[in-house]
Amino acid sequence: MQTAFTIRTPGPGLTEFTRDVASWLAGTGARDGLLTLFVRHTSCSLLIQENADPSVRADLQTFARRLIPENQAWITHDAEGPDDMPAHIRAALLPVSLSIPVTGGRMTLGTWQGIHLWEHRARPHTREIAAHVA
Amino acid sequence: MQTAFTIRTPGPGLTEFTRDVASWLAGTGARDGLLTLFVRHTSCSLLIQENADPSVRADLQTFARRLIPENQAWITHDAEGPDDMPAHIRAALLPVSLSIPVTGGRMTLGTWQGIHLWEHRARPHTREIAAHVA
Amino acid sequence: MQTAFTIRTPGPGLTEFTRDVASWLAGTGARDGLLTLFVRHTSCSLLIQENADPSVRADLQTFARRLIPENQAWITHDAEGPDDMPAHIRAALLPVSLSIPVTGGRMTLGTWQGIHLWEHRARPHTREIAAHVA
Repeated sequence: MQTAFTIRTPGPGLTEFTRDVASWLAGTGARDGLLTLFVRHTSCSLLIQENADPSVRADLQTFARRLIPENQAWITHDAEGPDDMPAHIRAALLPVSLSIPVTGGRMTLGTWQGIHLWEHRARPHTREIAAHVA
Repeated sequence: MQTAFTIRTPGPGLTEFTRDVASWLAGTGARDGLLTLFVRHTSCSLLIQENADPSVRADLQTFARRLIPENQAWITHDAEGPDDMPAHIRAALLPVSLSIPVTGGRMTLGTWQGIHLWEHRARPHTREIAAHVA
Repeated sequence: MQTAFTIRTPGPGLTEFTRDVASWLAGTGARDGLLTLFVRHTSCSLLIQENADPSVRADLQTFARRLIPENQAWITHDAEGPDDMPAHIRAALLPVSLSIPVTGGRMTLGTWQGIHLWEHRARPHTREIAAHVA
């Protein structure tokens, strides 16, 4: 079974969409199988990380900015502005696809694991994630 | 077919569990298919890397410590100690899921590839990995 | 259905092989399913990134060289030369497997997404990627 999730992002940072995935999965009637998510863009990422304390998401964003800052002299690709190439680099380092076993109709996520879309561009975007379960 | 592997880690570093996976896979009778592993935590990772020379694993740990050191002034999430947020960042950068084609009943791992659990927390932990083959 | 792709690399950098995958996929007759690629090496990676502007690929290579330079005093594993351990570290940070939903016989890649083999060793290599679709 397949679907696509559309996520609107407010700019850089993590947007959780675990509930959208869980809700769709419940509707498919899938019991035991494998769920795969795939983000169809080159300047944002998927990420499974802690969804309890917002300070984790804030620190992840700070780390990304420090590891891959904008306006570096060695960057040549800046057609869409100073956030263009840093967004591609972050997207290269972080997951484009995630696969999660499904048992008894539920994803085998750990207690603190939430599924996020990580926006790397400065401005809001509409992002599409393809999903497959079988 | 599904199972869960439980790995006890002695603290930071890589613990190989290729044999556990291969042994379970052999018992399933699966011939041609896809094996997926998924770690159910936000402060450790899965990693496929060289399993021959222990210096590779040692240098990977040194790199992780240098790239994401503890006790940085910009870190705000430290509820569980100085290793808390660095562990989340390392877990964000490294794989939470791995998918390996299975051919003739065996994983298509290359000669030097071993499957590891990478512990990012300072203290020993018990970690669970969900597995699916179909 | 399974196959293996063989990619010859000219040294460090990204080699796109989206067309090889699409062509094989078309021949399998698969309609709706999941395609998985798995690289059978510990010193190169798979990467989905922009395939339009070559400056993206050039900047990604520059970033990799800056993040993980050769000839660092803390590196102990150098049996195969100064590019040996940096290649393992880059392979640890970048994907070893990728999973892409297939809809109506086509991969659900976004407009700008191409599938690449990222060579991390200094010299040309022949690399093998296992593929599975079901």
